[in-house]
Amino acid sequence: MGEDDQRRGGRRGDADATRQALLDAASVLFAERGYERTTVRAIAARAGANQALLFRYFGSKRALFGEVMARNGRQRLLATEPERLLEVALRGLLPDDEDGPCDRSLEAFLRSAGSTDEVGAAGRLLGEEYARALGTLSDADDAALRADLVLAWLLGIGLTRVVVRKEPLAGAVPDDICALVLPAARSLLEGLAPPARPER
Amino acid sequence: MGEDDQRRGGRRGDADATRQALLDAASVLFAERGYERTTVRAIAARAGANQALLFRYFGSKRALFGEVMARNGRQRLLATEPERLLEVALRGLLPDDEDGPCDRSLEAFLRSAGSTDEVGAAGRLLGEEYARALGTLSDADDAALRADLVLAWLLGIGLTRVVVRKEPLAGAVPDDICALVLPAARSLLEGLAPPARPER
Repeated sequence: MGEDDQRRGGRRGDADATRQALLDAASVLFAERGYERTTVRAIAARAGANQALLFRYFGSKRALFGEVMARNGRQRLLATEPERLLEVALRGLLPDDEDGPCDRSLEAFLRSAGSTDEVGAAGRLLGEEYARALGTLSDADDAALRADLVLAWLLGIGLTRVVVRKEPLAGAVPDDICALVLPAARSLLEGLAPPARPER
Repeated sequence: MGEDDQRRGGRRGDADATRQALLDAASVLFAERGYERTTVRAIAARAGANQALLFRYFGSKRALFGEVMARNGRQRLLATEPERLLEVALRGLLPDDEDGPCDRSLEAFLRSAGSTDEVGAAGRLLGEEYARALGTLSDADDAALRADLVLAWLLGIGLTRVVVRKEPLAGAVPDDICALVLPAARSLLEGLAPPARPER
């Protein structure tokens, strides 16, 4: 289908379907190959679309990457009850196989967390949505601040593992991290006092 | 004093004194003007040294900045009992005046946290030292992991406030943040949480 056909005959639904196909293709390829080694050409080919459409819909490879990360995060958010969100989000930061292909995507995302470009913007938007969902778990007056502090913890853990690679946190087993972080984060969110000291 | 005098007659003590004067001058100027607006020329002038010495001792402005941040952090570490270190480190991340001149230094430091350059390297080294000091507060088997998790939280809070600027955390009063974070972090460090420890 040529450009002219796109302009004259392409219905809104076609554009949405193409956009969706590009996001799906990008999601698979970024995860398989990492950000750097995924070409715009490969994404377009896998989606059965042309590169011009990719740039028209998303503007740049970085912006497309931001949308993919935001979409994946949002899907996880929508599919998860608030009670389990904290654990699901934390485990999402802790891939079991540290050499897995997702690592470089997470790294690119975390490295962009503070930047003003599209990836950073997508991350901030997603952060807002997670904070809102986590905030519903708390009936404290300062629920929003508590939720931000929990998210800041997740961000810091992700950075320390994936970007800074500080040991022993970088190589720690996800279950061990969850066992330490989740009770502390939950009691912060729920406004509970820290657990009483067990007999030792 | 010319190059030849430096090589022949300069004593080790002179070099140390000049190095120290450059660090002192850089520390003041980075805090007053921020990283970008501080020139190598101004640092050398304030220290009464020449720019060639600055480059000889530190290699680059970025590397000097890394040394300044690491030195300030190390001085705070040495001057603080371990029991108070957590609060002192957290408050160090939370300048009361958010438009204060230190903010941009912290921002530059946090933006470099994951990079492989000298600033990132200084940050990682400092992180090791803080983690070791915090680890002494815990007698848990996994004290080092607990210390890393607490440091990751501080890193995430700093990033969220200074770089991402997410509200309400970015604008929250330091006392309010300390009131939420310190009990949770202390109970994590001291091994009070989680209450049910796996048998070993």
